[in-house]
Amino acid sequence: MKAARLFSYDKPLKVVDVEAPRIKNPSEVLVRVTGAGVCHTDLHIEEGVWREKVQVTLPYTLGHENAGVVQEVGDAVASFKKGEKVIVHPVITDGTCRPCRIGEDMHCENLVFPGITADGGFAEVLRTSERSLVRIHDLAPDDVAPLADAGLTAIRAVKKAASRTTSGSHIVVMGVGGLGHIALQLLRCMTNAVIIAADVAESKLRLAEKMGAHRVVDARRDPVKQVMDITANRGADVVIDLVGNDLTLANGMKMLHKGGTLIIVGYGGTLSVKAIDVIFSEFSVLGSLVGNWDELRELMELTRQGKVRVITQKGKLDEVNDILEQLKKGTLEGRGVVIP
Amino acid sequence: MKAARLFSYDKPLKVVDVEAPRIKNPSEVLVRVTGAGVCHTDLHIEEGVWREKVQVTLPYTLGHENAGVVQEVGDAVASFKKGEKVIVHPVITDGTCRPCRIGEDMHCENLVFPGITADGGFAEVLRTSERSLVRIHDLAPDDVAPLADAGLTAIRAVKKAASRTTSGSHIVVMGVGGLGHIALQLLRCMTNAVIIAADVAESKLRLAEKMGAHRVVDARRDPVKQVMDITANRGADVVIDLVGNDLTLANGMKMLHKGGTLIIVGYGGTLSVKAIDVIFSEFSVLGSLVGNWDELRELMELTRQGKVRVITQKGKLDEVNDILEQLKKGTLEGRGVVIP
Amino acid sequence: MKAARLFSYDKPLKVVDVEAPRIKNPSEVLVRVTGAGVCHTDLHIEEGVWREKVQVTLPYTLGHENAGVVQEVGDAVASFKKGEKVIVHPVITDGTCRPCRIGEDMHCENLVFPGITADGGFAEVLRTSERSLVRIHDLAPDDVAPLADAGLTAIRAVKKAASRTTSGSHIVVMGVGGLGHIALQLLRCMTNAVIIAADVAESKLRLAEKMGAHRVVDARRDPVKQVMDITANRGADVVIDLVGNDLTLANGMKMLHKGGTLIIVGYGGTLSVKAIDVIFSEFSVLGSLVGNWDELRELMELTRQGKVRVITQKGKLDEVNDILEQLKKGTLEGRGVVIP
Amino acid sequence: MKAARLFSYDKPLKVVDVEAPRIKNPSEVLVRVTGAGVCHTDLHIEEGVWREKVQVTLPYTLGHENAGVVQEVGDAVASFKKGEKVIVHPVITDGTCRPCRIGEDMHCENLVFPGITADGGFAEVLRTSERSLVRIHDLAPDDVAPLADAGLTAIRAVKKAASRTTSGSHIVVMGVGGLGHIALQLLRCMTNAVIIAADVAESKLRLAEKMGAHRVVDARRDPVKQVMDITANRGADVVIDLVGNDLTLANGMKMLHKGGTLIIVGYGGTLSVKAIDVIFSEFSVLGSLVGNWDELRELMELTRQGKVRVITQKGKLDEVNDILEQLKKGTLEGRGVVIP
Repeated sequence: MKAARLFSYDKPLKVVDVEAPRIKNPSEVLVRVTGAGVCHTDLHIEEGVWREKVQVTLPYTLGHENAGVVQEVGDAVASFKKGEKVIVHPVITDGTCRPCRIGEDMHCENLVFPGITADGGFAEVLRTSERSLVRIHDLAPDDVAPLADAGLTAIRAVKKAASRTTSGSHIVVMGVGGLGHIALQLLRCMTNAVIIAADVAESKLRLAEKMGAHRVVDARRDPVKQVMDITANRGADVVIDLVGNDLTLANGMKMLHKGGTLIIVGYGGTLSVKAIDVIFSEFSVLGSLVGNWDELRELMELTRQGKVRVITQKGKLDEVNDILEQLKKGTLEGRGVVIP
Repeated sequence: MKAARLFSYDKPLKVVDVEAPRIKNPSEVLVRVTGAGVCHTDLHIEEGVWREKVQVTLPYTLGHENAGVVQEVGDAVASFKKGEKVIVHPVITDGTCRPCRIGEDMHCENLVFPGITADGGFAEVLRTSERSLVRIHDLAPDDVAPLADAGLTAIRAVKKAASRTTSGSHIVVMGVGGLGHIALQLLRCMTNAVIIAADVAESKLRLAEKMGAHRVVDARRDPVKQVMDITANRGADVVIDLVGNDLTLANGMKMLHKGGTLIIVGYGGTLSVKAIDVIFSEFSVLGSLVGNWDELRELMELTRQGKVRVITQKGKLDEVNDILEQLKKGTLEGRGVVIP
Repeated sequence: MKAARLFSYDKPLKVVDVEAPRIKNPSEVLVRVTGAGVCHTDLHIEEGVWREKVQVTLPYTLGHENAGVVQEVGDAVASFKKGEKVIVHPVITDGTCRPCRIGEDMHCENLVFPGITADGGFAEVLRTSERSLVRIHDLAPDDVAPLADAGLTAIRAVKKAASRTTSGSHIVVMGVGGLGHIALQLLRCMTNAVIIAADVAESKLRLAEKMGAHRVVDARRDPVKQVMDITANRGADVVIDLVGNDLTLANGMKMLHKGGTLIIVGYGGTLSVKAIDVIFSEFSVLGSLVGNWDELRELMELTRQGKVRVITQKGKLDEVNDILEQLKKGTLEGRGVVIP
Repeated sequence: MKAARLFSYDKPLKVVDVEAPRIKNPSEVLVRVTGAGVCHTDLHIEEGVWREKVQVTLPYTLGHENAGVVQEVGDAVASFKKGEKVIVHPVITDGTCRPCRIGEDMHCENLVFPGITADGGFAEVLRTSERSLVRIHDLAPDDVAPLADAGLTAIRAVKKAASRTTSGSHIVVMGVGGLGHIALQLLRCMTNAVIIAADVAESKLRLAEKMGAHRVVDARRDPVKQVMDITANRGADVVIDLVGNDLTLANGMKMLHKGGTLIIVGYGGTLSVKAIDVIFSEFSVLGSLVGNWDELRELMELTRQGKVRVITQKGKLDEVNDILEQLKKGTLEGRGVVIP
């Protein structure tokens, strides 16, 4: 089968022929991928950012936002059968460790992350496990694929934000790209907060308004001051930083109200804060990862209810490098999806 | 009356005669102070650390850990009367803003902090408000005074730790001084975690063992490695940093398990973390302030139950500078208390 | 001033001249009532249902859903001044007991309930306290008055429902009257559940659809079976019983899914359940009272956001008995409001 | 192998020879039972109480509180191997439905309950699944077996109680038998409440004191009044009813404080409450089932820490009817355990 693989860091992917995966243990499932989202993390992997975080041998197939159709199931798989349309939770988990048993799959002690630590979904067929599947019923795999990671990361951050705010609170979303435009829609249906979107591109601010932001902030012009003005000098209750560079992290802290929370989702930069500032205003800083299985189920439910819609730019598998290039330049609206 | 006041930064307090406070509005209360704890924050105030955080004009009376006897109540005070023994919540709050209405007094929008932003309790009489009082019944004011701030800060941090752990989790307490020796006792009665205490002084480690630590770590010798060894390389679920210098903050992050939480209570240093690290392991960093009124009530209840006992070094009001000096040198065991 | 007062049980109210209330203690406030909602509880009081629950001497003024304009404030009142438009939380609380200190005003140990245990708002002027006021800014008192009790009771029940469900859960609302039509709107903005409304009147089912119910159930025709059909025999996750007679309570239990919750708001009937049934399916039964201050604040915020609108039938003070009559017959759509 | 089986309702069990179970699907495990607790539910099953709740064909083997040694594992079992000492969670769950995925195993949509709906552990070998096992390390299976159900039910009720109380709250435990004596120990290490135990037998009250009750109440002499006296007429914050007959349920409601919670664990009787009472005091009534996997893990941790110890009366498999008889008469102290 064809697959888009990373052969060396700082080089584009190559679309090559590889052997299709086979089921190796009874709880595995093969999914014919009919939609695979392209993510900033794919860029970061190319750039070698993840090299010290995970162990993986090149070459391997990227792609960790996958949806498609069940092609084959292992002998122990009881809850899915061939032909069902599914979205694929990005990680394979053991189901027996404590984190798995309390529903926090992402903290599984034996986690495998196809597309990051193993062969992923920029390929015709993906090997995953029964525990990673969520039915999508009448939704289209290529429409929902980006929800498997971008959306799933957004919903987890939004749920953290929701649990720390009340009706009328102010929530800032920094970065209106693949994650941001989904986060805004989720904030609209999961909170009754005032939603402020910040970005450096005019087109992204217009997108933010369409996706539900009540207010937008041009991040090129003193975003801290703008947020202070919007909040009558109170500051925001929660900032969700989907960018994560030094500047956005520092600004995020500065625009918080007493008791406020900075949720970090984007990465690349470093957060530097004085202990006295964190204590004096009792700030919280929360890292936020991709969501768990139930959050993916919930996201599919909200999509079915028409409350979430991903803006996608679809292409063929061999267009993956073009899409990555646009993503790098920041010219991609919404999320790129390849259809292997 | 006599009061120990700060006349200039970087100089010792002076014990001088000042006019006793009078009730100015109907919800105020005068408390005859019979125990006032001496805190690291008093040192930090002397050093000018708080100068940019709060607005206050010198000279003024320090002392924010107070207990004593109600001497006079304003006309609108219904729940306390003259002669009752009380511990004094460190802040005066308006009772009408949203934070006050949901019980988070410390985030009051009109907060006054006697001993930090107004005259405090290193004096014969303290002016406070009805909302700041908690009855202590048969406990002695000079025994419990340090619970008004050191204890109240400890219980809030411990409750945050408790809510993020389960039986068998590992919790590290860095710093076994005034706060630490109370935090250890609270962890024993509020969690079923394995409690690890770290300090740089041998005597503090012995104290930690007496106060309930299951394991102690000599922080002079690679505390991260020691915690990793104790936890079978898993790392701690929560670290409570009561020291808060650059090194303890950095070490705190390094000894966390996936999904772990660093609770910052001590201050002075700066925390610097890469966004990718925070996200990859979904860490949380929580500033923790002094607790709310109900946490002070709870702390008095636990003290009455015999589960919490403060180790105190008592002195007269004019010995306050000596106590501050010992605190600076780290030679004070437990908490200093002056009896005005 | 004129006031509608209860002189004897099982008789209509009489509109008579009484002396206007005066401020008796410094935290009190006089509110000129410009909207007072008429509630089923007023009927129940007339019928003597509350006689054994509370101690009150006839005659007294009913009316516990009040909004208007601040007319005079006591000396200790700092957060409101004459002329401000306010909605009045239905109870007067002491602000110092533990329930008040943790935000659960309704459980205040020294609670006074104007309109139930003291003179209420079917009068030109109402005496209440600073703690009971919430600003309504540009909303009209006669439009929002029913939110002070009907709405506040609805939001508390809805928040309990929200905390026990997830996106896609099924929530049944029994009774689409004054509370019900608000509860439906709140469920739409505070949950992503499938909302099912049940009532015995065709007109109420049409109202339910307008207010946001996804499905309606004619309660005259085996509502349990209908809910089972709608939920594919799963049963509902939460039932909010706003009627509370023997039949609705029994049916509520029967239509619950495993782990489900019956929230009781309406009253009059008796719930009878076998212990084995409660345990086997781990059901919860929650009484739900009128909400706390912060819930009233939140409700005003949602109203300002345009997400909640009360349907009102407005009348003059001396029309109160007519409105009560219509309420009794079930012919009143939405909520009756008198304008004293 | 030998097994104690129910051949007809209202008759004692018969110990007979049956074929040993074999592994039928790859996630199953065979456990050699070396301790099986005897439970009130076994009596209730004999009496036919469960006949209408579950579908099962006689004869079958009872015993749902099992511990022992792993004898054989299926091909898909990765986290346990032959020879490990384990306690067996009482139910077999599918691991893929939503309740399983969020950790609420007991609400599994495809739950099998060996000893109630399938062959249980009053036998030499029990068939269960990987998901049902918890390691016990150096604990003895015949000492901990009753924790698999009696203890697991107790910890779930105690955790519900803990989450609804604070230090100094009053919690009443009704019934100091198999569950009660464990619940008392758990309340001591999981709360800082005042613990009141009620029972009709003098010996049980003495046991309660040994197990940690602060106060005991002879339930033959107006227990409601006694609880009111102990709580200064405030009432209890939580009542855990481990008996569940008409009288204890009615008394439980009567001894609650405003906002209080009745947790029902015992069964047999019927709860009857007026809606107005439930609402007026905002009471909650919670059914409580056996706990989930993580609660069993936590219980083993607390046992290892020495905080929980089951009092057991051990016998051979063919003594099971004698033990059931003592249980019926109420003469058994602690929990009966058979060692097949």
